[in-house]
Amino acid sequence: MADDHVQSSGRMQAYSDAIFSIVATIMILPVAHTEIPKDKNLREVIFYQLLPKILIYILSFFVVAISWSAHVWLFQIIRHADDVTTLLNLLIMMIITFLPFTFTLMGTFPEFVLAIVLFSVCIIVLGLVQALVVLHVFRNPQTMEESIRNSENMTAVRNALLLRVLVNAILCTFAAVFAPVTSVISYVFLVMILFSPNIAVQLSKLISKCSGGRFQMSQEVVRRGKSYEMEVNKERVECYSDGVFAIVATLIILDICEKDIPSRTALKYEYKNDLVAALDHDSSVFLAYFGTFATVGLLWYIHHSLYHHLQRTSRLMTMFNNFSLAMIGGMPLAFKLTSLYNDTDFYNNERVAIQLSCVIMFLASISQLAIFVTALFRPEQDLTDSVKVGGQSHYYLLVKLLVYPTVSIIIYIISLTSDVLSVESFHVAQLGTPVLFFILWLIAVKIQRNVQEVLNPEEHPPIQEGINNENQRLLTVPTDNIDC
Amino acid sequence: MADDHVQSSGRMQAYSDAIFSIVATIMILPVAHTEIPKDKNLREVIFYQLLPKILIYILSFFVVAISWSAHVWLFQIIRHADDVTTLLNLLIMMIITFLPFTFTLMGTFPEFVLAIVLFSVCIIVLGLVQALVVLHVFRNPQTMEESIRNSENMTAVRNALLLRVLVNAILCTFAAVFAPVTSVISYVFLVMILFSPNIAVQLSKLISKCSGGRFQMSQEVVRRGKSYEMEVNKERVECYSDGVFAIVATLIILDICEKDIPSRTALKYEYKNDLVAALDHDSSVFLAYFGTFATVGLLWYIHHSLYHHLQRTSRLMTMFNNFSLAMIGGMPLAFKLTSLYNDTDFYNNERVAIQLSCVIMFLASISQLAIFVTALFRPEQDLTDSVKVGGQSHYYLLVKLLVYPTVSIIIYIISLTSDVLSVESFHVAQLGTPVLFFILWLIAVKIQRNVQEVLNPEEHPPIQEGINNENQRLLTVPTDNIDC
Repeated sequence: MADDHVQSSGRMQAYSDAIFSIVATIMILPVAHTEIPKDKNLREVIFYQLLPKILIYILSFFVVAISWSAHVWLFQIIRHADDVTTLLNLLIMMIITFLPFTFTLMGTFPEFVLAIVLFSVCIIVLGLVQALVVLHVFRNPQTMEESIRNSENMTAVRNALLLRVLVNAILCTFAAVFAPVTSVISYVFLVMILFSPNIAVQLSKLISKCSGGRFQMSQEVVRRGKSYEMEVNKERVECYSDGVFAIVATLIILDICEKDIPSRTALKYEYKNDLVAALDHDSSVFLAYFGTFATVGLLWYIHHSLYHHLQRTSRLMTMFNNFSLAMIGGMPLAFKLTSLYNDTDFYNNERVAIQLSCVIMFLASISQLAIFVTALFRPEQDLTDSVKVGGQSHYYLLVKLLVYPTVSIIIYIISLTSDVLSVESFHVAQLGTPVLFFILWLIAVKIQRNVQEVLNPEEHPPIQEGINNENQRLLTVPTDNIDC
Repeated sequence: MADDHVQSSGRMQAYSDAIFSIVATIMILPVAHTEIPKDKNLREVIFYQLLPKILIYILSFFVVAISWSAHVWLFQIIRHADDVTTLLNLLIMMIITFLPFTFTLMGTFPEFVLAIVLFSVCIIVLGLVQALVVLHVFRNPQTMEESIRNSENMTAVRNALLLRVLVNAILCTFAAVFAPVTSVISYVFLVMILFSPNIAVQLSKLISKCSGGRFQMSQEVVRRGKSYEMEVNKERVECYSDGVFAIVATLIILDICEKDIPSRTALKYEYKNDLVAALDHDSSVFLAYFGTFATVGLLWYIHHSLYHHLQRTSRLMTMFNNFSLAMIGGMPLAFKLTSLYNDTDFYNNERVAIQLSCVIMFLASISQLAIFVTALFRPEQDLTDSVKVGGQSHYYLLVKLLVYPTVSIIIYIISLTSDVLSVESFHVAQLGTPVLFFILWLIAVKIQRNVQEVLNPEEHPPIQEGINNENQRLLTVPTDNIDC
């Protein structure tokens, strides 16, 4: 019966990552599905109707991301998950999946006590279940990571962990208590969730100081906790990011499936059974889809190249990554607006839609660049050799990371100064960007071949085919430990 | 520059798995969002309105799953993906994500030539891009798996692979050509896609026979291909399944967010600003959500336990798994119907909705059992020691796998014979099932403790705490190579 009760926790974590990422991203849909009349000024609609919703989306994305990082942190102590931990984790997933409802409710009725209380109760229950996991794991030390099991001061580690998972619950208890009095104070407590990792560290210092050592939560433990937080497992960041990238593309096609396939009656009476005419009516949507997918796909590709060269991820880098992902989650909104204002002349709405898309693309890609720049400050710990300053792939990666910020600024400026830019040409530009990356790759291969020839002229094989093979063999480095 | 051009293919595959699984599952939404009047006979609605759509959903699920297994098969030959392969893979993902559109179009207008042609063109382009990947990889042998690179007859392997990825394209070419003549023949070709792996094997035999060895596609290569197909990587099956399980739960909450949060105006005029009353109006939805999530979560848990004990997966097992996943993808439909007919007395609709849910739960869980039974036929190759007949966890796993088929049959019979069963009690039963698993776990631990005491009475430690620790230490077996 041995290994039936206790299973490796890898798959459970990957499954949790998938749910967290989908839950975070799916909250863009209430924003993207806002009914926008075609004849209104889009600029005004954005500021008065969309912006509050967008802010709530970003806030909720970060709340989910913070919960996810606490989950990563908690499960990093578990080496093998037994059946009880697995069932408790499913309970956590159930609450996480329910969060979008309470968050949307709070976004729609921010001043209602019930909305604040419901959301708070969710977070409180979440904290309590996570605390149960901590207690269960510490009662069964054989399921823990070796380093923690062999720690001298296990009780102190446990207390620090309990505090970390309960901090949000404490903040939300205050939020719920103050909700009937005034919602402003409640929201102050709710926004503090975004800083809960830091609050937990400060609080644990305070508690050990005040209790005079009765509560063992020593600096050493806090440091350990901090270092765990710093080193959120790179593989789990990749899994989480993949989930976001994967769901964004499918959310767009879902919209097309539900809205752009005419009903049989519409086809009969509106288009006289001419399916080509019916589809042609929505043809701009398809160009928009392929253009948006190209952008999302390439941002994944850049993310993939970047994380391939990271050795560890700090909290700041994870924060930039979360922001980048939140922006990529906003692509369905960009898709909807550009396909909606495809042929309108009202108030320059077409250009405003393009500009909004550019802003989203710019913020998503510049945050990816920010991750790399952050890593460059501590290259020895954070980066592989080849992308450090002076490394052979440094410029290649840098140029890759610069493509989207540059392209989106250029398109934005063009849209400001002239009106030649249509939604169609914007999507064609999006579709053309992969060619840019292919050319970049060709140049990089060419440069390396030249370097190779200069360095080892005697190894120059006589046949062209030979050069290719030799060159490509050199390009290959086995790095097959990056799974998931 | 070395490792910048060539990256381990693990993350690319995990990302592809996520997209494939989400695309396959998301096709349930056009079924689940079918407008069903509350006062109609649900039995008739199911047979005349839903069943055709459900069949199309299952067909499309399998088409995506077949494409996925071809993708797995193709990428198993790749050890490291260079930038070109990664970009081509993104192109494949773009086509895969577009498939739901063409499939929904074909489902809505099955007799229109354009619908058949559009779908066929998608599959043809997909085949051509995959063929490009094959050609690119064979021009760059250093990116291949060692076993294939060192194969004596690489050309023959390449030809077999090309045939495998092009078989669907060939079938779809015929379908598109025959579409203007008669759509029946087209659909015969399209349904043949479901058997494309076998067709590829037979076709390659035929070609090598007819060409008399000119086309090198020898039996050996075919066998190799077959064995690759047989052994679809277990980790990728797990990733793909996790994607389906994760998206199902979030699709349900998405529905709740979009439909069960009243608008501000509705709250003002319909409920006189009483949010509690407004939410109470849809309260059944929340019970339905938690019940459905419990079921999906536990089916994941059983899947997790089962695959933990599989050493390899055959084609038949993957087929059962796909069918089980397709049924789990149907849970949003069960959710919708049970929450819709919560309080209606028309035509026993409430009981019909429960029965449909039971059928879905039964089919999903019995297919999981079928995977285990299939594995029991070749226990030496397929199973870990502990779950073979006579193994110490054999019965525990078997009982776990039997819970849902039994529970759904019992509920189904109760719903036939008496009318005490309401939707509420059904969902409460769903919510109660985790307790059943917890009791099962307690019994399993208890039995093992007794076995332990009988086997090693002298090792019996004097203190109760000691028994626990000893017992739990024995339960732990490190199996941390199952990541992702």
